[in-house]
Parts: sequence; structure tokens; C-alpha cells
Amino acid sequence: LLLFFALFVTYDEPLAQAEDAKVVANQLYGIFPFFQDIQMMLVVGLGLLLTFLPRYGLSVLTHNFLLLNFSTQWALALQGLIHHFHHGQVHLDLRNLLTAEFAAVTVLISVGAVLGRTSPCQLLLVATCEVPVYLASDEWAIVTHLGVLDVGGTITIHVFSCYFGLGVSKGLFGATRRPVHPKETPTPRSDLLSLVGTLILWVFWPSFVAVLCQPGDAQHRAILNTLLAMSASTVTTVVASSLLERDGKLSAGHLQNGSLAGGVAIGAVADMAMPPVAALALGSLSAVICVLGFRFLTPLLVRKLALQDQCGIHNLHGLPGILGAVASAVAILVASEDTSGSRFSQVQALCQAAGLAAAIGGSLLAGLLAGATLRLPCLARPPEQLSFDDLLYFKTQDQAESPGLGSTTEEGALALKE
Amino acid sequence: LLLFFALFVTYDEPLAQAEDAKVVANQLYGIFPFFQDIQMMLVVGLGLLLTFLPRYGLSVLTHNFLLLNFSTQWALALQGLIHHFHHGQVHLDLRNLLTAEFAAVTVLISVGAVLGRTSPCQLLLVATCEVPVYLASDEWAIVTHLGVLDVGGTITIHVFSCYFGLGVSKGLFGATRRPVHPKETPTPRSDLLSLVGTLILWVFWPSFVAVLCQPGDAQHRAILNTLLAMSASTVTTVVASSLLERDGKLSAGHLQNGSLAGGVAIGAVADMAMPPVAALALGSLSAVICVLGFRFLTPLLVRKLALQDQCGIHNLHGLPGILGAVASAVAILVASEDTSGSRFSQVQALCQAAGLAAAIGGSLLAGLLAGATLRLPCLARPPEQLSFDDLLYFKTQDQAESPGLGSTTEEGALALKE
Amino acid sequence: LLLFFALFVTYDEPLAQAEDAKVVANQLYGIFPFFQDIQMMLVVGLGLLLTFLPRYGLSVLTHNFLLLNFSTQWALALQGLIHHFHHGQVHLDLRNLLTAEFAAVTVLISVGAVLGRTSPCQLLLVATCEVPVYLASDEWAIVTHLGVLDVGGTITIHVFSCYFGLGVSKGLFGATRRPVHPKETPTPRSDLLSLVGTLILWVFWPSFVAVLCQPGDAQHRAILNTLLAMSASTVTTVVASSLLERDGKLSAGHLQNGSLAGGVAIGAVADMAMPPVAALALGSLSAVICVLGFRFLTPLLVRKLALQDQCGIHNLHGLPGILGAVASAVAILVASEDTSGSRFSQVQALCQAAGLAAAIGGSLLAGLLAGATLRLPCLARPPEQLSFDDLLYFKTQDQAESPGLGSTTEEGALALKE
Repeated sequence: LLLFFALFVTYDEPLAQAEDAKVVANQLYGIFPFFQDIQMMLVVGLGLLLTFLPRYGLSVLTHNFLLLNFSTQWALALQGLIHHFHHGQVHLDLRNLLTAEFAAVTVLISVGAVLGRTSPCQLLLVATCEVPVYLASDEWAIVTHLGVLDVGGTITIHVFSCYFGLGVSKGLFGATRRPVHPKETPTPRSDLLSLVGTLILWVFWPSFVAVLCQPGDAQHRAILNTLLAMSASTVTTVVASSLLERDGKLSAGHLQNGSLAGGVAIGAVADMAMPPVAALALGSLSAVICVLGFRFLTPLLVRKLALQDQCGIHNLHGLPGILGAVASAVAILVASEDTSGSRFSQVQALCQAAGLAAAIGGSLLAGLLAGATLRLPCLARPPEQLSFDDLLYFKTQDQAESPGLGSTTEEGALALKE
Repeated sequence: LLLFFALFVTYDEPLAQAEDAKVVANQLYGIFPFFQDIQMMLVVGLGLLLTFLPRYGLSVLTHNFLLLNFSTQWALALQGLIHHFHHGQVHLDLRNLLTAEFAAVTVLISVGAVLGRTSPCQLLLVATCEVPVYLASDEWAIVTHLGVLDVGGTITIHVFSCYFGLGVSKGLFGATRRPVHPKETPTPRSDLLSLVGTLILWVFWPSFVAVLCQPGDAQHRAILNTLLAMSASTVTTVVASSLLERDGKLSAGHLQNGSLAGGVAIGAVADMAMPPVAALALGSLSAVICVLGFRFLTPLLVRKLALQDQCGIHNLHGLPGILGAVASAVAILVASEDTSGSRFSQVQALCQAAGLAAAIGGSLLAGLLAGATLRLPCLARPPEQLSFDDLLYFKTQDQAESPGLGSTTEEGALALKE
Repeated sequence: LLLFFALFVTYDEPLAQAEDAKVVANQLYGIFPFFQDIQMMLVVGLGLLLTFLPRYGLSVLTHNFLLLNFSTQWALALQGLIHHFHHGQVHLDLRNLLTAEFAAVTVLISVGAVLGRTSPCQLLLVATCEVPVYLASDEWAIVTHLGVLDVGGTITIHVFSCYFGLGVSKGLFGATRRPVHPKETPTPRSDLLSLVGTLILWVFWPSFVAVLCQPGDAQHRAILNTLLAMSASTVTTVVASSLLERDGKLSAGHLQNGSLAGGVAIGAVADMAMPPVAALALGSLSAVICVLGFRFLTPLLVRKLALQDQCGIHNLHGLPGILGAVASAVAILVASEDTSGSRFSQVQALCQAAGLAAAIGGSLLAGLLAGATLRLPCLARPPEQLSFDDLLYFKTQDQAESPGLGSTTEEGALALKE
């Protein structure tokens, strides 16, 4: 099952080149609270959000934790390698760590599409593929060359990783359609933990959007706009979800994702000067899109394209991301009407659109390739029957001592399946 | 069930007047860590604290989250409206958001009295009523006109919202006394989650008290006093609870509330200069009062007044709040003996007492009116049998697929009831 | 069962001497975010980490919470006493509180060895003994007189408290070996909560290491080194655990502890200038040692010495702590080769070794004495049958109302035991 170690040898070598890097003190000291908030989001919040699979909580937390660490180190090593050829020396600081962590975020989002039906080795391979693609396409092509404005990572992180994940899912599972797995349906208890994860993400999201802004004015604006957008999307999600479901009941899945949609969409425009009502409207709109996506688009994609999207990343990251990118182009055009440089801003708006297209196209292609690689026979996929089950990856102590108990649980699950 | 949308139209209009508001950068940047702490308290901590109802966790988290967002937006809109007539322009910043959030806190506390037996529509109506009353009575009458000193919101937030909540409960349920509902008794698991919520609140409480203090000396003092008071109330709660119960066992409910009582009581005096031992004593005393309230006063109120108080807000917010208000008057008088202005400080001590009386009287009256409004026939109350149950508000996937299971759970609950 | 109150009278008196202490504002204001992070670690993170005992969650959270508060107050009172004789006045500030809290951390770690088989009174007695020993031996002898460099508390906190805890365990339980208790084996659900605790500790650990560093350069370095070490130890733990267990499965216990081992080991060297790869290597090595300790050393110690170590504190705090101390001596020697003062640094390296030996020896001895004190007949130990059970300390409401239910659970537990 485990080829871990072979992988880790490969990453330790390039990192040795970062050895020259002297840890340099700098004035970035002020970003530490933001950094801690983001760590809390990624490690605790995102991990808990994914625990909605009732028998898969331990695995999901562990995979999330492992991937975050592996991808961050891998991104740091790659950054070190790139800088080594450019400048000869890397200075490791918190800001470097942050950009490496942003590369890791794309991995964490992408694997949401194939969660539960993949082994840790496959997930690590996804991470190995995705981080260089992210650094090349996003950081380099989209931000540096196209000059896309995107402080909160709407295009470069959310849209990119969503379509990469969908590509992986398509490439890995092909056209086979799977029946609903009995362990896939969340229980009230797992929904509760997952909702706590949502709340933690919701609380710390403004830090995620604002951390790389210009300190001062723009950062303050980014925080406020994000707060407003997320507040609006929460209220709208509750309304939309209860209008869509029978009897006005809410769906826990809608709530877990919809309340965060505002944060995804606001990323590209968070630091621009705009009226608060625009942030509220954008948040509401993205929540509506997200809930509608869960209700209508996901079943459609499954039926037409046999596209597997376990955590609904297309609804949370894809659709609101596209909305946010469009909003950023509109915001630039509107802002230009007041001021002079309208020509310049038309170009900028085009750049945003081009960046969006590049992110979608590039990531889909790379994702398909990565997904196809995962089908290599040396990477065993977990058997269908043991998908979504911690038993596959964790030694439970009951099992060791009273094997009767473990098998009962399994039999129960099988009985449920029939 | 859902009249949500009609409500939301009403809040979006006045907010349009905040449209003119330019998001202005300012030096408040330093309050961001405090702000995040408070968000964490309200969204995660308070939500988890309320999950002690074992079958109602999802609903309670959702209602808490929804009410926080709705009330904050509503308070922002009202603030915008008021300022519109005064100054013509509102500048939205983090401090504004904070005061709006404090208005939302009063709603979150008040609904604790009627939790589980009310629908979301009723709760939103409570929020709609309470926010303007809070802004009018508290912010305007008590703080601005009486000049009550209350950095931590002991009088303006805790006492006010407690008696408003009791008023709503009385107005809504009238004199009918209800038997104990079978789903009301917490399980060890729900108590555990609730205790985690308490711990989160406990950790971040100093930020809540200190955020609006004068930066520097007073803020530092407020943090230290709050830490000492809460530390003392934790230890005292354990002692008091184990002395009161049979066999020296603890009650989880006492622990969940008593350890926070110190934070409630210290609010009014946190930034005053006083010996550390006074903070410790105040914390201990408030914990004792809180535990005694749970043990003796709540059953008494139920028997004599048929007063329903689901979460014991009277014991956590009412009694320690009154104690804190009295302590603030005493602290002012004692401080004046050392220095000269004894006349002035007698007036100030009287103001504190007047503010306390105004908060209790005004909120009880307003709460009774709001509670009576909730009995309007258009607002359906949940049927008694489905109180304290997530099934009423959440589509569970088991239900959709295997309706047998859902009904079994319900039958089980009914069986338990008989 | 409860002698609590008698104990609390004793702590309130010396605290009265801190009464003179004036709360002084100072420039330490910048440490507040660090302080909050550490509070979060100790109250929520550590508490949750210990909930891996499935039926003991409430007790474990409560004991952790109570001990933290009691020990902090006790340490504050002792500090006040000491300073009273030296300088006449104590100035209470956040930094004082922090050092008092660090004294409390040693208690929280030590009791991990005897968790579940001790009553709260016994735990409070451990705290009463350990805090003065810590202040005397560690703060005074090791840091002030030997001049040991140890910003992160590797030697003074982790090694010290580990061997103190083992001493208590040996002194209390003697040579009797206990069979595995049926309630000792974690369930998947309790493992999940415990893992969440690990994640919270992992996120905030850099604050713990860096808070008492020199602000600026050294603090930045400490944060980065800690991040790298913990990241490496996470990845290594997963690899090592899956190589050691049958079928490449992970053990949740390894993961919960191993990912934190890097943070323990890095403490002594965190603020020194060293290449990033050294921090990574140290993190990996400590994780390997921790996992190997769980797999081989703990069973060996139980067999040979009948040494009880409930939470594996020897593997998490003892072994990585010793590794960290050795690493600090090596780092000092290596650094001296570049610069001039090699004589001085040899002395310093010797000091580190002497500090380590003093911490181990002193704490073992003191722990044995404290453990022997706990066997006094007036301190009832919980009966073996009710160990690891919340029922002993918490009034469950089921019990009160339907005593049939409570006894069923108990009978079930007994049945499991047979």
C-alpha cells in the first residue's frame, strides 16, 4: 500500500539547496496573526468541513493534514529551485511560507473531487503534479505576465484548483458511473462536525483574503468587503436552501458550502473601492449560484458526463469563482468610468477574462493528465467496498482485540447496502 | 414555514443608504486580532455551547449563525439610518461592525431563553424587535445620557439581553407550564461538545471585554482583570458544584455556565484600577451565584412564575450581571475615598444603579411586548412533539432514502416520552 | 471525595500579598495575540487531545481546565511570595501570567501519566507539589544559575514534566501491574476528537515556542524553525507509523503524538541561526523516535518496570525533549566553529547537558516523592472498576431520571470487561 518513502526521498534533495537560505528577519512580523488564522483554517477548519463522511473522519483529517504539509514542503523546495537558478539564494520567511501554503491550498481543494475513493499514495501523486502546474501557470503566467488582479485567489486558487480537481476526477474514473455508496450519506453527527468546520473557515476567511494585500487602506477594505460578502451569503443560503427543498427544510450540505461562497467570489475584488452594497450583492448572488449548483447542476453533470464531484467543489469553488472573476472585470470597467484611464482599464478587464480562461483551460488539461497517471497499475485504488471507511487506513484497537466487533460493523454496513 | 424572504427585502433597502459610505482606512487596524477572537467566540464558541441539546445541534448552530448575521446587518442598517439623519454620511469600519455585532450578541443571548420551542421565523422577529430597542435604550439612553461606565457590556449587553429574553419567554408561553421534554436532557456526548464551546468562549472572553477600552493602560488592565476573574470563577464553580450535588459529583451544566460567570460580572469594572484580589473575589462570587441560581432559583421560577429559561440565561447573564453592576458602583465609591472628587463619584455610582434599573425595566417591558407579538397566528410555533429536534428543520438524507429509519428514531423518542 | 475547599483557602492567603501589586501598563501589549494562541492550545487543544478515552471526555476536559487554573493561580501566588521577600512589590502583567502558565503546563503534562486512575484531589495535590519544584529547580537552578538556553522549554518544561509525571506514576502505583482496562481503548469517535486537539496544538505551537524570544530577528527565526520542524515531523510520522504497523495501516495514537514531537524537540534550538534543513531533520528524527517509543519502548517499560504511562508522555515529551537538548548542545558547538569564542561555547554546551541531567534527576526524585504522598489514605483513589469513566465525577441526567439506563451502561461496561 505504501510507497510514501520513495516519494519523500525525492523532495528532500532539492530542499537541500534551500540549505543556503539564511533565515532573514524582516518587517513581515505583522503578518503573523494572519498566518495563524490561515493555518487554523486549513488544518482545523478545512479538515473538519470534510468530515461529513461519517465513517471517514479520521482518514479525511489525516489526509488533509498530510497533504498540506507535503505540498507546502514541495512548493518550498520548488520555489527554492527556481530562485536558485535566478538569484542564487533564497531567503526563507513567513511570506514565502504563505505562498507555498497557497500552493498547498489548491491541492487540498482539488482532492475534494475524488475524496474517499482514492488512496493516500494517489493523493500524494496529485499533489506532486499540481504544485508545479500551479507555480508555472498561475503564479507565473497569470499573475506575472497577464497582470491579473486577484488578491484573494479567486481565479488563481479557487477556479484553478476546482477545474484541476474535476479533471483528475474525470481522468481517474473515466466514464463509469458509480452507485451511491452506503457510507457516503452523512449522519446528523458528521454534519454537525462538518458545520463546525464551516464556521471556523467562515470566521478566519477575511484573513485569507487580506493577508497579501497592501497593508493599510487596501487591507482594511478587503477585510470589510469579505465580512459583508460572507454575511450576505450566509443569510441568502438559508433562504435559498429552504425555498428549494421540500417543506422549507434546510439541507446541511447547502449550508456548509453556501455560507462560504461569498468568500470565494469576493477574492478578486476585495481590495477595490466599491460600495458595501456591491459586496453584499456579490455575496448573495454567489450563495444563490452555489445552492442552485448543488440542487440542479451536480445531478446533471453526473447524469450527462458521469463526472464525480464528491465534495461539490464545482459549486463552492468553481461557480462562485467564475462569478467573482466576472465581477472583477465589471468592477474595473465601472471604476474607470469615474476616472480617466478608461482605455487602460478595458485592457485590464480583458486580462481578467483571459486569466480566467487560462486558469480553466490549463487546469482542466493538467488535471486530466494527472488523473490518467493515477490509473497506473502500481497505484492500487481502494476496493469499492472499503471506500469511505477508516478501517482501510487505521488500525482500530477494537479490531485488534475483539475482531468480532469490527466485522459486525462491516456486516452492518453491508447489510445497509443491500 | 418560511417567510424569510419577505423579511430580507426590508433590510436591504435601508442598507442602500449606507451605499454612500466610503470604506475608510484608519488606525483601527490594530483591533483586527481582537475582532477575530470575538468572531470565533460568537460563531463557534456560542454555537457549540448551545449544542447541549442532543438532537438539536445542527439547528442550534444554524440559528445562532443566521441570527448573528441577520442582526449584524440589521444593526448596521439602523446605524446607517440614524447617522444619515445626523451627519449625512456613514463611514463603515471595523469599529462600526463591532458595535453592530454587540447588538447581535444581545439577540443571541436573549433567544437562549426560548430555544428549541420556537421557529426560525419567530427568532428572526425577536431579532428585528430587539436590535432597535438595544440601540435606543442602551446605546443612547444608558451610555450616552446616563454616562454609565461599562466597557465589557455587563449592564448594556448581559443584563439587558437576559431580561429581554425572559420577557419574550413569558410573553410567548404565558402561564402554561410544560413538562420536561424527553429530548431536552443532554447526553454525555452533547455535554462534551457544549463544554468545548465553553472553553472557546472562556479563552477569547478577554478580547470581548477589552476590545473597546482605551488602548494602552486601561486595555491591559481589562485583560488581566478578566483573566483573573474567569480563572477564579472556574475553580469556584468546580468546588461549588461538587458541594451542592449528591456524592460530590459535578453537573456539566454548572461547569458550562459557571466558568463564564466571572467574565460577565467583571465587564463593568474591568478597566478600573483595583487590586487583583478584588477581581478574583468578584469572579468567585459570581460563580457561586450562578451555580446557586441553577440549583435553587431556576426551579423556583418555574414553579412560581411558570417562567421558561431553556439555557439558564438568568443564571449566567442576569445574576452575575447585576452583581457586576453593583460591584462597579462600589468600586467607584471606594476609589473616590482615596482621591478628592467624592461628590462626583457618588453621582456616578447612582448613575450605575439607575442604568441597571433602566436596563432591567426597559428590557423586560420590551421583551414582553415582543413575546406577545410572537403569538400572532401567522407565525407557526413548532409542534411540541418535534421541539428540540433537527428533523423539523433539516432534510436528513437517511429520511429521503430510507424513510423507515427516520420514523424509527421518532418512534423511539415517543417511546421514551411515555 | 472532595477536599477541594481546604486547598483553596491555602492559595487565597499568599495571593493577598499580591494585593499590593499594581497592574502596570507596559509595552508587552504586543504579546497578546501570542498569549491568546497559547490559551487556546492549553485549554482547548490539550483538553481535546486527552479525550481519546471514550467514556472519560468530560472528566478529562474538566480536570485539564481545573488544573490549568489552579496551577496558574498557585504559581502566581508563589511568584508573589518570592518577589515579596526580594523586592517588596510585584507588578502583575501578561508576562508574569505567561510564566505562571508555563508552570501550569508542566502540571498538565505530568498528570498525563496517571490520567484516569486518579481523583481530582490527587491531581490537585500533584499540582501543589510540582509548581514549587518547577519554580525552584527549573526557573532558578537551571535557567538562572546554569544559564541553559531554552526558549521553547524543551528541557525546562517538557523533559522536566515528563520525568516528574513518570515519577508520580511509579510512586503512586508501585510495582503492581494492571491489566488493560476495557474503557481504555479509544473508539474512532474519540480518536477523531483527539486528533482535532492535536491539530489545534499543532497550529498554535509556534506561538508557544516564540512568545518569550527576543522580539524581532530571533522570534521570526523561532517561528520559522518550529513550523519547519513540525511540518517534517507530521510527514515522517505518517510514513513511520505505516511502516511499523501491519498492512501499512496508521495508528491514530502515533499520529496524535508524533506530529507534535517536532515542536517539542525544536524548543531548545528554535532561536539559533541554523539552516532550514537542520530544523527539518530534527523534526523528522524526533517523530521517528516518538513513534518507535510508542511501538517498542512503552511495552518494554510496562513489562520491565511496571511503569504506567497513560498518555505516552515519555514518547511525546521525554524522548524528543532529550533529543532536542542534545541537538542544542551540538548546535552550539557547530556554531562556535565558525566564530571565535569556541571555549565559551564548549562551556555552554556542557551547561546544556548539565541542565538536562539536572532536569531529569530532580524531577524523577520529586515525582517519586509526590507520588508516594498520593498514597496517603485520606486521598481515596477511584475504584478500578470506575476508572476511565465520567460516571464517577459527573451527574448524568439520565441517571437522575431513569436510573435503569445508567445501570445498563454500567452493566454493559462490566459485561465488556468479562
